[in-house]
Amino acid sequence: MHVLIIGAAGMIGRKLTEQLAREGKLAGRQITALSLIDVTPPEKPTGFAGTVSLTTLDISAPGVVTAHIAARPDFIFDLAAVVSGEAEADFDKGYRINLDGTRNLLEAIRHEGAKTPYRPRMVFTSSVAVFGAPFPALIGDEFFSTPLTSYGTQKAICELLIADYSRRGFVDAVSIRLPTICIRPGKPNKAASGFFSNIMREPLVGQEAVLPVADDVRHWVASPRAAVGFLVHAAEMDTAPLGARRALTMPGLSATIAEQIEALRKVGGDKAVKLVRREPDTVIANMVAGWPRAFDAKRALALGFRPDASFDDIVRIHVEEELGGRVPVRQ
Amino acid sequence: MHVLIIGAAGMIGRKLTEQLAREGKLAGRQITALSLIDVTPPEKPTGFAGTVSLTTLDISAPGVVTAHIAARPDFIFDLAAVVSGEAEADFDKGYRINLDGTRNLLEAIRHEGAKTPYRPRMVFTSSVAVFGAPFPALIGDEFFSTPLTSYGTQKAICELLIADYSRRGFVDAVSIRLPTICIRPGKPNKAASGFFSNIMREPLVGQEAVLPVADDVRHWVASPRAAVGFLVHAAEMDTAPLGARRALTMPGLSATIAEQIEALRKVGGDKAVKLVRREPDTVIANMVAGWPRAFDAKRALALGFRPDASFDDIVRIHVEEELGGRVPVRQ
Repeated sequence: MHVLIIGAAGMIGRKLTEQLAREGKLAGRQITALSLIDVTPPEKPTGFAGTVSLTTLDISAPGVVTAHIAARPDFIFDLAAVVSGEAEADFDKGYRINLDGTRNLLEAIRHEGAKTPYRPRMVFTSSVAVFGAPFPALIGDEFFSTPLTSYGTQKAICELLIADYSRRGFVDAVSIRLPTICIRPGKPNKAASGFFSNIMREPLVGQEAVLPVADDVRHWVASPRAAVGFLVHAAEMDTAPLGARRALTMPGLSATIAEQIEALRKVGGDKAVKLVRREPDTVIANMVAGWPRAFDAKRALALGFRPDASFDDIVRIHVEEELGGRVPVRQ
Repeated sequence: MHVLIIGAAGMIGRKLTEQLAREGKLAGRQITALSLIDVTPPEKPTGFAGTVSLTTLDISAPGVVTAHIAARPDFIFDLAAVVSGEAEADFDKGYRINLDGTRNLLEAIRHEGAKTPYRPRMVFTSSVAVFGAPFPALIGDEFFSTPLTSYGTQKAICELLIADYSRRGFVDAVSIRLPTICIRPGKPNKAASGFFSNIMREPLVGQEAVLPVADDVRHWVASPRAAVGFLVHAAEMDTAPLGARRALTMPGLSATIAEQIEALRKVGGDKAVKLVRREPDTVIANMVAGWPRAFDAKRALALGFRPDASFDDIVRIHVEEELGGRVPVRQ
């Protein structure tokens, strides 16, 4: 059985690739071929017995994805996207990659299926950015989609396309709306939401991190491990109960900065907490005030998607996956 | 001042053109030029003092709309669309005209504005087809968009694009979700919703019409005159109160078949009512059961959009506009 991952070199793409390579199975079937595509060169996973193909490719260019769909992968993960800040700064690039990229993919699948029947399972990573303020305290599964960014608009459009292509029988796709991923591994980035990860990741290794908002700020997050779990479950689930409503808000964890800091204290001690430097930034605070704080993700929970248990767990996962079980600030 | 109407040869396009030509004004300004575009040749309106340009053009072809936007019309009405049934039957054509056509237009406006500032008012005709069953009895302004047709999907996507292009300052656009237009003039057509008009229009001129559903079926309608009123108001209104939410459900009239028939009786008498032949069709009945029946269009009402007063009024408007004030079945 053949799995295609588009956007395989990104943070979530790499973690998904590693897990699939390690398990060697998806939906109870043996994975014999793994095709990895990204605009930056994807890495070959270790410990995978089947065939691996690595392709460096911009899927937003017309026609380029066709050859990869002609190989008729059974499962397609569409993770390729430019992030919110970049889609806002570069209007053309955002629409080209985040909208046309996914539309090209859907069209390639439809045309392949017009030759002889072909209806792969596709999993698309959408975002809670499809929603726009003002929000209720708890956002339900039927809240309307009024994005306030080009990124959120592009994701909302792809959700609509995916629902229509699925309804018409061209593909069997699920859109999953990911929470903010926390703790993101790697270097601090310039994303406005970066501090949610920075204030955990940096102190754990003895580095200072800036907190630009108040301690009572609440946010909707999921660990990288939970996010990979969502992707795998979306690939394996029975899609019949979805009906025509193919987009699902994933069950994240609603946590305040104060809760994050207490979780940090448990693992890194007061020494780690002291490395969180409070430097209020009203621009960032105002931006974050417009972000969703908590969802009532009933539908995804009923369909078997599993959230992180607590922020303590999120920190534990980070220490396991990124720090080899050690906490440098404690040394 | 220059007005561009794309889709000017359609039923609503012709009525809008006639009204603008007759009034000679929009938003308190003199109309000096009227540009009419359609894929079928638009007709020159009578009694208009300014310049009229008529163009037969398929706006879904890339680049063709650019020259018309280079003339920098102050107001743009985007009415061009293939109907629901055709968009369902011809997938490619539906997306090409209903999605790419409007996206090309938005892109042409954005690129024109990149040369020297240009931010026209644009009015886009969306549809209640952006919503999908199951519905509450009264559908609110914040009901979510889960279309069950490709047509509804295309309209929902255009609404999202229009909101984003407006938020970014490239255009000042309003999407108005029209109810089913009733009484549609002309010949009976094959649209599944055609009978709502047929059972009124045909008996008034002494012709039989088929009613395929039960008398208690409720539907959401607006007269052609009300629809033109919505378009003009959307062109003239202050868009500041819309914020980032640029799509508005228009205030239609929720009427049952029984109410329609009583309105027909008042104008056409029992003789007209006898021409409504009941011929139940379960396929049509099931389709109609999935359509919205009534909206609570609070937001549009608060912003000054005016619905038809009653179904009696809708019949009166039809007799005035289409029958020259005469009721042939009475002769």
